Amino acid sequence: MDETEIIRRFFARGSQREDVTLAIGDDAAAVRVPERHELVSAMDTLVADVHFPAAMAAHEIGHRTLAVNLSDFAAMAAQPAWALLSLSLPQADESWLQSFSDGFFELADEYDVALIGGDLVSGPLAATVTLLGHAPQGSLIRRSGARAGDALYVTGRPGAALASDYLRRPEPRVVEGLSLRGVASAMIDISDGLLTDTRRLAESSGVCITLDAGALAEVVEGDLLAAICGGDDYELLFTAPEGQTAAVTGIGADRGCGVRRIGQVGEGQGVVLPGHDPDRLAGYDHFSKT
Amino acid sequence: MDETEIIRRFFARGSQREDVTLAIGDDAAAVRVPERHELVSAMDTLVADVHFPAAMAAHEIGHRTLAVNLSDFAAMAAQPAWALLSLSLPQADESWLQSFSDGFFELADEYDVALIGGDLVSGPLAATVTLLGHAPQGSLIRRSGARAGDALYVTGRPGAALASDYLRRPEPRVVEGLSLRGVASAMIDISDGLLTDTRRLAESSGVCITLDAGALAEVVEGDLLAAICGGDDYELLFTAPEGQTAAVTGIGADRGCGVRRIGQVGEGQGVVLPGHDPDRLAGYDHFSKT
Repeated sequence: MDETEIIRRFFARGSQREDVTLAIGDDAAAVRVPERHELVSAMDTLVADVHFPAAMAAHEIGHRTLAVNLSDFAAMAAQPAWALLSLSLPQADESWLQSFSDGFFELADEYDVALIGGDLVSGPLAATVTLLGHAPQGSLIRRSGARAGDALYVTGRPGAALASDYLRRPEPRVVEGLSLRGVASAMIDISDGLLTDTRRLAESSGVCITLDAGALAEVVEGDLLAAICGGDDYELLFTAPEGQTAAVTGIGADRGCGVRRIGQVGEGQGVVLPGHDPDRLAGYDHFSKT
Repeated sequence: MDETEIIRRFFARGSQREDVTLAIGDDAAAVRVPERHELVSAMDTLVADVHFPAAMAAHEIGHRTLAVNLSDFAAMAAQPAWALLSLSLPQADESWLQSFSDGFFELADEYDVALIGGDLVSGPLAATVTLLGHAPQGSLIRRSGARAGDALYVTGRPGAALASDYLRRPEPRVVEGLSLRGVASAMIDISDGLLTDTRRLAESSGVCITLDAGALAEVVEGDLLAAICGGDDYELLFTAPEGQTAAVTGIGADRGCGVRRIGQVGEGQGVVLPGHDPDRLAGYDHFSKT
């Protein structure tokens, strides 16, 4: 199989999206972005034996390479629509390719994402996805919008990735993220552990976030510090003004994942976890991935 | 240096583009696409020791990783505007990063391309760029538009990549490509050799293209067959109706790269080079990269 044959057999599925004006097969792809919307883009690379075991089932790798980007979109309250995939492969194995593309397209179909282009190269096993989509102008929820007086919330149960095989099939919180448009003041997805990503939110917003150890203990799976320092949960961490409390609670109930209040935004900077040494907590940042 | 520090020092340059509404530093980036334009996207991955020698100067790698995508845009007559870069590095070497980012941004600045996002991971040396841009609705020049009666043209001097170190600094024909909007009927950039890419153009358009061996011999650098089977020239190969002959010639003269007529489009399929065995010519396709 050469490049053209692999793309035709495993990746050039016709899309149902009418806004794709030129899909796989030319020098570039073309789509129509809705008027009065911003174009949103995210890009993530997963490398074998760095971000996943090389022997992981291809189906899971295909799922995950799109899921991590969908999670970035969720964290902005952006609508995913189109993807480009670059796959670097040591060799072209038919059953591996079939399994990978099945995993990729099962998730793509769930969110109506069309694969419109990409690249296929010989090289060490790695996959890069650029996810494209849109949001009404001015509606994106940034990391920088948290204000003193807001409450801090998290979806689902952080730490579940460590406590189970959940890591292999992270379910991106795309619908939850979109529901938080107009509700959340700042948002980030948990990709390097709740503690590190809370710190990022606090830094971007120029605020101090105080975590509620009691609330966290009820939310996380397993050991508290391990859970908040573990990564790859793909839950959403967000802030909202007190006036949005009912809306936030409603979203958690609607979606069944649960949304729990785990902290408070105040003046200052950094992250505080009462009962824990700030310096020791800061040390956990070094677990963050490059 | 951790990921955040590397991005801040080498890649998070402020952009002059007013259409970038959210750049590097959040979960995703956002831009505004002009009204009544299509969004265009291309993605290429370069892997060390597959697409370039690992020891190649970082400056050249940075240049080339953007240049190959700009060449794809040139071949569509699309306007480049924004880029995402994913860089996989075995280690974070400051002087390498400085040189790579200089090479990348020198070319990006030349075409007013803003780096708006991407990824930075530990892994084998490889770089992936997703280039985004736009074109007025319906104006893209596809591979599929060649019609019997059109003439075939090429920019510059194919084969120069083999005959010199031109490969290391391919100059994408972005301006030439944009000039051919409304003039060319079909277009492709030469990335796998003139012969293979002529065949792709013929297949996409459902036509037969007869190359003019005499004209080609005057155009190419070095041995004819070697030149038309070599890759990575990043010249543009395009067709245009007879009525556009003067316009095509004018564009070649304006830009100084030269545009030569090297063939004729007719009914049928495939590529014919008079005086050469079609089967033997077809064999050269196997040089195409994966």
